[in-house]
Amino acid sequence: MLLHLSTWSEVEVYLKQSQGIILPIGSTEQHGPTGLIGTDAICAEAIARGVGDAVNAMVAPTINVGMALHHTGFPGTISLRPSTMILVIKDYISCLVKAGFTKFLFINGHGGNIATLKAAFAETYAHLADLNIPNADLVQCQIGNWFMCSSVYKLAKELYGHEEGSHATPSEVALTQYIYPEAIKQAALSAEVGSGHKIYGAADFRKRYPDGRMGSNPALATPEHGKQFYDLAVKELSNGYLEFLNTD
Amino acid sequence: MLLHLSTWSEVEVYLKQSQGIILPIGSTEQHGPTGLIGTDAICAEAIARGVGDAVNAMVAPTINVGMALHHTGFPGTISLRPSTMILVIKDYISCLVKAGFTKFLFINGHGGNIATLKAAFAETYAHLADLNIPNADLVQCQIGNWFMCSSVYKLAKELYGHEEGSHATPSEVALTQYIYPEAIKQAALSAEVGSGHKIYGAADFRKRYPDGRMGSNPALATPEHGKQFYDLAVKELSNGYLEFLNTD
Amino acid sequence: MLLHLSTWSEVEVYLKQSQGIILPIGSTEQHGPTGLIGTDAICAEAIARGVGDAVNAMVAPTINVGMALHHTGFPGTISLRPSTMILVIKDYISCLVKAGFTKFLFINGHGGNIATLKAAFAETYAHLADLNIPNADLVQCQIGNWFMCSSVYKLAKELYGHEEGSHATPSEVALTQYIYPEAIKQAALSAEVGSGHKIYGAADFRKRYPDGRMGSNPALATPEHGKQFYDLAVKELSNGYLEFLNTD
Amino acid sequence: MLLHLSTWSEVEVYLKQSQGIILPIGSTEQHGPTGLIGTDAICAEAIARGVGDAVNAMVAPTINVGMALHHTGFPGTISLRPSTMILVIKDYISCLVKAGFTKFLFINGHGGNIATLKAAFAETYAHLADLNIPNADLVQCQIGNWFMCSSVYKLAKELYGHEEGSHATPSEVALTQYIYPEAIKQAALSAEVGSGHKIYGAADFRKRYPDGRMGSNPALATPEHGKQFYDLAVKELSNGYLEFLNTD
Amino acid sequence: MLLHLSTWSEVEVYLKQSQGIILPIGSTEQHGPTGLIGTDAICAEAIARGVGDAVNAMVAPTINVGMALHHTGFPGTISLRPSTMILVIKDYISCLVKAGFTKFLFINGHGGNIATLKAAFAETYAHLADLNIPNADLVQCQIGNWFMCSSVYKLAKELYGHEEGSHATPSEVALTQYIYPEAIKQAALSAEVGSGHKIYGAADFRKRYPDGRMGSNPALATPEHGKQFYDLAVKELSNGYLEFLNTD
Amino acid sequence: MLLHLSTWSEVEVYLKQSQGIILPIGSTEQHGPTGLIGTDAICAEAIARGVGDAVNAMVAPTINVGMALHHTGFPGTISLRPSTMILVIKDYISCLVKAGFTKFLFINGHGGNIATLKAAFAETYAHLADLNIPNADLVQCQIGNWFMCSSVYKLAKELYGHEEGSHATPSEVALTQYIYPEAIKQAALSAEVGSGHKIYGAADFRKRYPDGRMGSNPALATPEHGKQFYDLAVKELSNGYLEFLNTD
Ligand code: NI
Ligand code: NI
Ligand code: NI
Ligand code: NI
Ligand code: NI
Ligand code: NI
Repeated sequence: MLLHLSTWSEVEVYLKQSQGIILPIGSTEQHGPTGLIGTDAICAEAIARGVGDAVNAMVAPTINVGMALHHTGFPGTISLRPSTMILVIKDYISCLVKAGFTKFLFINGHGGNIATLKAAFAETYAHLADLNIPNADLVQCQIGNWFMCSSVYKLAKELYGHEEGSHATPSEVALTQYIYPEAIKQAALSAEVGSGHKIYGAADFRKRYPDGRMGSNPALATPEHGKQFYDLAVKELSNGYLEFLNTD
Repeated sequence: MLLHLSTWSEVEVYLKQSQGIILPIGSTEQHGPTGLIGTDAICAEAIARGVGDAVNAMVAPTINVGMALHHTGFPGTISLRPSTMILVIKDYISCLVKAGFTKFLFINGHGGNIATLKAAFAETYAHLADLNIPNADLVQCQIGNWFMCSSVYKLAKELYGHEEGSHATPSEVALTQYIYPEAIKQAALSAEVGSGHKIYGAADFRKRYPDGRMGSNPALATPEHGKQFYDLAVKELSNGYLEFLNTD
Repeated sequence: MLLHLSTWSEVEVYLKQSQGIILPIGSTEQHGPTGLIGTDAICAEAIARGVGDAVNAMVAPTINVGMALHHTGFPGTISLRPSTMILVIKDYISCLVKAGFTKFLFINGHGGNIATLKAAFAETYAHLADLNIPNADLVQCQIGNWFMCSSVYKLAKELYGHEEGSHATPSEVALTQYIYPEAIKQAALSAEVGSGHKIYGAADFRKRYPDGRMGSNPALATPEHGKQFYDLAVKELSNGYLEFLNTD
Repeated sequence: MLLHLSTWSEVEVYLKQSQGIILPIGSTEQHGPTGLIGTDAICAEAIARGVGDAVNAMVAPTINVGMALHHTGFPGTISLRPSTMILVIKDYISCLVKAGFTKFLFINGHGGNIATLKAAFAETYAHLADLNIPNADLVQCQIGNWFMCSSVYKLAKELYGHEEGSHATPSEVALTQYIYPEAIKQAALSAEVGSGHKIYGAADFRKRYPDGRMGSNPALATPEHGKQFYDLAVKELSNGYLEFLNTD
Repeated sequence: MLLHLSTWSEVEVYLKQSQGIILPIGSTEQHGPTGLIGTDAICAEAIARGVGDAVNAMVAPTINVGMALHHTGFPGTISLRPSTMILVIKDYISCLVKAGFTKFLFINGHGGNIATLKAAFAETYAHLADLNIPNADLVQCQIGNWFMCSSVYKLAKELYGHEEGSHATPSEVALTQYIYPEAIKQAALSAEVGSGHKIYGAADFRKRYPDGRMGSNPALATPEHGKQFYDLAVKELSNGYLEFLNTD
Repeated sequence: MLLHLSTWSEVEVYLKQSQGIILPIGSTEQHGPTGLIGTDAICAEAIARGVGDAVNAMVAPTINVGMALHHTGFPGTISLRPSTMILVIKDYISCLVKAGFTKFLFINGHGGNIATLKAAFAETYAHLADLNIPNADLVQCQIGNWFMCSSVYKLAKELYGHEEGSHATPSEVALTQYIYPEAIKQAALSAEVGSGHKIYGAADFRKRYPDGRMGSNPALATPEHGKQFYDLAVKELSNGYLEFLNTD
């Protein structure tokens, strides 16, 4: 069930049988010369909807913009500051908890969101406890990073080896090619690619990773690979969601 | 051009010919017994993309959640607090300004966003001026409310008269039916509908508007009407965008 | 009754018979070559006190500084940022709600305050609901813009036509002349006056409106006009306040 | 010169000869059974204007509401939280510094404001330094507490001895009687009065100081005393302002 | 008892007999050519532990960094902004109040902390009242400034006269010499020393006080003096703590 | 070099040869029936000083309180909210960057700090870029978690196997025993210990981990083990620091 295509009465009915909800969260950030700026949101959304279908769970609208400050040296990137993102996540969860939801799975497409999401969860648990909401103590938030699913990771290594890299990866590009075949991009990729540097500020990032890729060769991506990644991620995260729901 | 389906290099090229960008903003809130919770985001997104196509403008990812605190008494509603939303808008615009954008048209699907958007614009202009960014003084933000387009308003009055109401209106429901015909909802609507009350807090709102509608009869909506509204809004807002771009 | 000239025991007695309070809010901002920097606060305060006398309502101290960031290019302007003003309004209302007040009429002298006030009201309703205060659900806030009273607007059009303009207007200048005849200013006004531009940042504003006026000819103002505006606004807002009190 | 009765052009002229400004700051808080809720703002405003006249200085609009959280157990009290007040002061000073002011004398009527004002000054100096404003390093803020003027203090001790107390004092009540003779209040004062307790939260304060007075006997106040206090405070603070201006 | 050397079970036992806690707070800031950057934290910590031993009170970990923005022109200084420090203090106290503590004595080594601490206490009392915590109304916070103990002050005047000065004083340097004899510093001190200037921003401070001292001659300090100051401060603050605990 | 035992002139000299600084950060939180509340700060501080000695680096005062909201169900725990901690870290780093430091190694004793630290670094890089500070682009922050050093981890597994657990571990307890042999605690440990549950809010945590341990058996700890862990961590983190310094 997609929250945005439901009515409030349908949500009311849903809440009688489940208090779980899936929230896709991505990022709007450069993904190299051939990767889509929306890659992380596109992947998270598609997989979250696949999971929602598979396990009959409510899926919230996608959070399209996340924490991508280090990519802001490239045009088209939009980022929340972590302090803003914490407030956003707190507002989202607080509204949904008051309505009766207690189990939150954020299906995430962007590694840069993880730290701030975790910080936001801690902030939110404490906030809800302060509000004296009856079900505050039952609230549980988890992150499901599709790109860190073991099956996904394994396939990526098989297909691409070290050319998977860590940003603008062929696996995520493949997934977007599968979802948006009409938006497959062609651009020359330099043989040389920045790799292995730590991430600091935006100007520093652009200097170290001049075309935005981090050690990856997205030219290896195909839509067919994308379908494989999609299927694996949906399966693994569906199992994860059910286990989450069934654990007190 | 859709930002999320572009690469950063394409954005770089775009910025050489235009500094304008369209940002669809909606809300995730109850829309009565038959209206979709995502109505405002769905409408804003569809129209923004229509405008983007018509005028060859960059369209940012949709801001799906806005200021809907007064609807939070109904399950499924998600809202930012105004103070959070100001930070979100400030973060969005600041990133884009640093990349070179200066003209921001927010195509808006939700009346409740307007005040906070205006506050956010003022906050952001002052913030950018403080940053000593070269093009800070050129930054201009406007709101284009599709439902307040004169052509849209006129048609709604013709088709529905006073049954247009002011929330969960047949016009917006019609538009979502046109966009998502597979999600047309059936539910009994009481003949009586709350109307004419001012908007205060969430509990008060639900008491005054028990099924979420504000004076509207969304049963009058048809997908064909939706197409008409879509065409009118795209046309009028496309003209508005071009005028905005061409005014210094 | 003026709150600042009352004792707390008098407020306690007042609260037994009424939970309403009037809060004048203005701005401290340039008003062209002949308009007083305090114009908006002066007008709001005088009218609020007139209304308070007419309807026997408590009147809070005037909020002298509002949201006038776009005027800060002119010396003497003081503005809160919208995010600050939201906190200020939230603090004011929260204190008064805890004491028993529930009906808040902000008599406003400055168009630039409206958006932020509305955002602040939404923020405050949600905050009060979180606090579990017994009467939180009864709290209602309204804005009464004296310059948008239909009687005021009609007279301004009669007296000044399009020379009323939209900032540093002859109507507001007339009102300050009536209240402070000793502070009537003389200065040459250029025949040409900026007009019709949208409002963005402060530097942009000053460039478009070099002497601060927006399409107005304040030289038309007289203290006698001011008295007429005062009488009309007090009458209309008094009726508005009583209707507000009498509506649940 | 009163800022609110000046035009921006007059401020521009003023700034050529002086960069100093006086900001009256009070509080809106209970002052015992016979003291006015606006006492602290009334006193600060009157004295600030007296000083402004005496030394030909610009006087800003009065900040009517300050930090009075400990008085919020009594109806009619309005308080900013310290974190809000810091932002307010920062916004005020930042606007005025950008216009050219550098010397800020806050004439203060409320002991409870002092700590937060000092915190706000520190916050503001650092903020201005971050903004790279040319005259940031010249900005100087001082507090002039009229009730701590040595001449005022001496007279209060002479007239009232220990019955001066520390809140709702006869000296401040006398000053309001001089300024607003029409608002002199009569109410029985219990012989017993809370005294000597430290100040913690609002509920605790009301328990220890049940009628709001802190060790004072405001029944001793007369308008004639008020005039004496006024004259002394204006004289002493005028000297203080001139010394402030003349010290680099 | 030192909190950091206790277990939670020991704290649980302690809370059955006492709800008091001592929190040492210092600063990390320049203290002239021979004073340690940690002087204020070192002194506060040592004295707090001495008091804790003397009165069998729980002592929290030292807050090493406080409000020292005016010293940030000298390398090595670290400061919180006042707005940050208010949040820190609020977080500390809120955690401890929820666990059962109600009496908080901040033993303070830095004058610059006082205003912000007071602001933070007010902010915190109001926050706790909003949370509906049972013992919120019993929460009491006090500041014990070791350098303002009358016995300390008297000895400093006896030993150093006006050469005590007001920052990087021989008394505080002596105390650090007593605590860390291995860190006694030698450096030439200019005969001339800045003195009597008010404190504004950091750049201004460094200009007026070029070596960081404020009117002091720390060359007079000896470790033996330090022991005397230590003993006096521990004794006086121990009495103060017991009186605090025994007052309701 | 310990910052708190240095003078500002010594820091000035240090900065000519190195721009690196080590910041120990711990937590003040329950560590089971026998673990010290200050465990994480104690370990971080000791190791940081060991590293500082080994590599001749400046060591800042310890941040004793971190992000431990999930432990606040146990008395004695003190936690910053993540949003507060972000501001604290931002303030620390900003002060030090302005003084000339650019390489920040946070030696961390608490897993719960990691996410918020990472968020804070991102927030800070963006903040510094906005300030137009010359060396903003050179600023680099890293976290060195002593308990995640591979040599430490290996030894812990060898000595304790799965009884190492993940909180109140024998390895960290051993380290505190080595540092504070006088504070070795004795308490009965139930054979059963909570294990394998995810971390959500504080009340939930205490329910799942009733004595505070997470799968650990701290009874295995000895001071001799502690020395081994200390030596390994100092060695490994010293190498890490030097590598950090030597990488541009
Ligand atoms: Ni990605
Ligand atoms: Ni709608
Ligand atoms: Ni006006
Ligand atoms: Ni007073
Ligand atoms: Ni000191
Ligand atoms: Ni630990």
